[in-house]
Amino acid sequence: MPTVLTVYASDYGHTRDAAMALTEGADRVRGVDARHATADSLTHDDVAVADALVLGSPVHMGSMHWEMKRFVDLVLGRFWSGAVMRGRIGGVFVTGGGVGGAGGGCELTMLSLHGAMAELGMHLIPLARDTPGFEHGGLHWGPYVRCATSTGAAHPVPNECRDLLAGHGAAIAQAAVDRSIARRFPALHLSDRSA
Amino acid sequence: MPTVLTVYASDYGHTRDAAMALTEGADRVRGVDARHATADSLTHDDVAVADALVLGSPVHMGSMHWEMKRFVDLVLGRFWSGAVMRGRIGGVFVTGGGVGGAGGGCELTMLSLHGAMAELGMHLIPLARDTPGFEHGGLHWGPYVRCATSTGAAHPVPNECRDLLAGHGAAIAQAAVDRSIARRFPALHLSDRSA
Amino acid sequence: MPTVLTVYASDYGHTRDAAMALTEGADRVRGVDARHATADSLTHDDVAVADALVLGSPVHMGSMHWEMKRFVDLVLGRFWSGAVMRGRIGGVFVTGGGVGGAGGGCELTMLSLHGAMAELGMHLIPLARDTPGFEHGGLHWGPYVRCATSTGAAHPVPNECRDLLAGHGAAIAQAAVDRSIARRFPALHLSDRSA
Amino acid sequence: MPTVLTVYASDYGHTRDAAMALTEGADRVRGVDARHATADSLTHDDVAVADALVLGSPVHMGSMHWEMKRFVDLVLGRFWSGAVMRGRIGGVFVTGGGVGGAGGGCELTMLSLHGAMAELGMHLIPLARDTPGFEHGGLHWGPYVRCATSTGAAHPVPNECRDLLAGHGAAIAQAAVDRSIARRFPALHLSDRSA
Repeated sequence: MPTVLTVYASDYGHTRDAAMALTEGADRVRGVDARHATADSLTHDDVAVADALVLGSPVHMGSMHWEMKRFVDLVLGRFWSGAVMRGRIGGVFVTGGGVGGAGGGCELTMLSLHGAMAELGMHLIPLARDTPGFEHGGLHWGPYVRCATSTGAAHPVPNECRDLLAGHGAAIAQAAVDRSIARRFPALHLSDRSA
Repeated sequence: MPTVLTVYASDYGHTRDAAMALTEGADRVRGVDARHATADSLTHDDVAVADALVLGSPVHMGSMHWEMKRFVDLVLGRFWSGAVMRGRIGGVFVTGGGVGGAGGGCELTMLSLHGAMAELGMHLIPLARDTPGFEHGGLHWGPYVRCATSTGAAHPVPNECRDLLAGHGAAIAQAAVDRSIARRFPALHLSDRSA
Repeated sequence: MPTVLTVYASDYGHTRDAAMALTEGADRVRGVDARHATADSLTHDDVAVADALVLGSPVHMGSMHWEMKRFVDLVLGRFWSGAVMRGRIGGVFVTGGGVGGAGGGCELTMLSLHGAMAELGMHLIPLARDTPGFEHGGLHWGPYVRCATSTGAAHPVPNECRDLLAGHGAAIAQAAVDRSIARRFPALHLSDRSA
Repeated sequence: MPTVLTVYASDYGHTRDAAMALTEGADRVRGVDARHATADSLTHDDVAVADALVLGSPVHMGSMHWEMKRFVDLVLGRFWSGAVMRGRIGGVFVTGGGVGGAGGGCELTMLSLHGAMAELGMHLIPLARDTPGFEHGGLHWGPYVRCATSTGAAHPVPNECRDLLAGHGAAIAQAAVDRSIARRFPALHLSDRSA
């Protein structure tokens, strides 16, 4: 039973709400165990059991929340020298407030989150354009959940964004299921014509 | 008299309109000659006289329009081995349509445009948050001008975006003026205490 | 039989050589048909049959070769409005010359290439750290093949880089095989507990 | 007297050494006061007096050290809602170890550091290609100081990199001097032909 683990940091609860919406979407895929947890609550062992990992962060000053970065450095970093996470599934989402109508740095934030998982050899699942809700915060790297108007007035996670997050969670979960199917056929794996 | 040259590629005229709005803002700064031209119309010599360069592009598939890239490779690239452009002023803007509410790749597009000028040693002017219109397409790297709703229905450059573009143009022009002032005092330049 | 198609642009033949080395690695995976072609030779239909797509480019002025960008805009862009490429496999490599010992913009170039495939919903395969040859141009996003010394003197694709490219090609091909295995079990796909 | 402040986080002392080399280069420019300090030692008031700011970080998992990110979020972030830092000068450098010959994520790390200063409206100074030592870690965004071989064996900051850092420091300091010159001529500033 593939496990999808969503890790997040949250200041005001918006990113937690977004993590929950994504987890619900992942959980609806048959055969998947979907969980979420804060970045400061997880150890190396908690992550080691995840078949898929989703990293979610508010955008702060154009990049990830420093508590997410601490998690990346101190927990994910411990996997760097090994191959445990190689080929597992990775995805991202971010949230944002503040002023401005152009994403506020969401893209570079998503790329840094993806990059941390690429460092571990994980396969990266982008956000498909036909995911319901894409017009509400859809970017090809992942969902961007605005929790404020463009002038900076805060509001909860919009329902359309919940759909988008759930759809992304389902796609990530499905990729984890697919991987578990393929791994049942080891004869087809890493085979070499020259062998 | 510092020259500000805005270079753009445009499919439907939106990016040309945005280039014009930015140029008008630059032109309002005293002592500045502001121009704009399409990427396919310029030679190395046209660029060599620009004290400030602004690169504007539609976002296509998450990066700059291929005609802008051709200009970067074939025209700007010719400056790479020399120091002619070193210390001159650079800025960017991008336009976008399509589906999605998270910038559609505008950030990576702006970074590639900035990067081409960084390769020449040019000083990069970001978009200040207090520029009027920032809430309509403001990103710290430059203006992102949506010319479509989030579901993809096309519309002209919004007036608020014109203000934002003009303000960015004025800031870039002012940086070019400042540089020309500083260069009138060569005794203060590249001086070395050890000399 | 999954098809792995490597698309590249090449100025002096180095990127073509690198594309060939990657293709050879992909071709060694059992059940894979691996091909390579220049960006200016391919149509929409040629790409539509690829189960995995690898994009390779020289780094020019900190981003992809303008001929690759033209291919991305005019050929890959035609897939944007549909879902044909969704879930297929994508990977990248880049080559570089010039002066400088820090990649010369290879990372942003790889990210723009990855981004074009993310726009199509393709799953992105990074370069695993334990791939043989990683110390010769290994970056987590893909191989960076230096074809010049750090002072800019040109040389052929180093053999260690060929190993790295071949290993990356094999990993991409294996991901395409895995996907084809998983797709033989439609009952496990897109299933929904609530259904 | 313009102040150039270099802020860094360091695990083993390499990044501190690099910060010192850059500071020495800045200090050689006449009329400049150059300092350096660790990210965890600085308050909002310490930063507020800096005419130029240099951010330096090790590359960890493809992005900046979490202690630098904490500084960006908690100290620099306090400037976000105001205009105090607008138009001041910014520059970056990064250090790296680990395995791999393609920068290990140095570019995205530099871009996130630049981005934090772009959020404050600061003008960004890239690394000019003709800076002595450019072939030893030169990237257009800033110096990348390898403190390990490509297979990961640690070594001190190379002397060629010290030259590169010093040259970058001098260029940043000179930009701060130029700005202070230009600001002595307020009649030429923010003037408007329509006025």
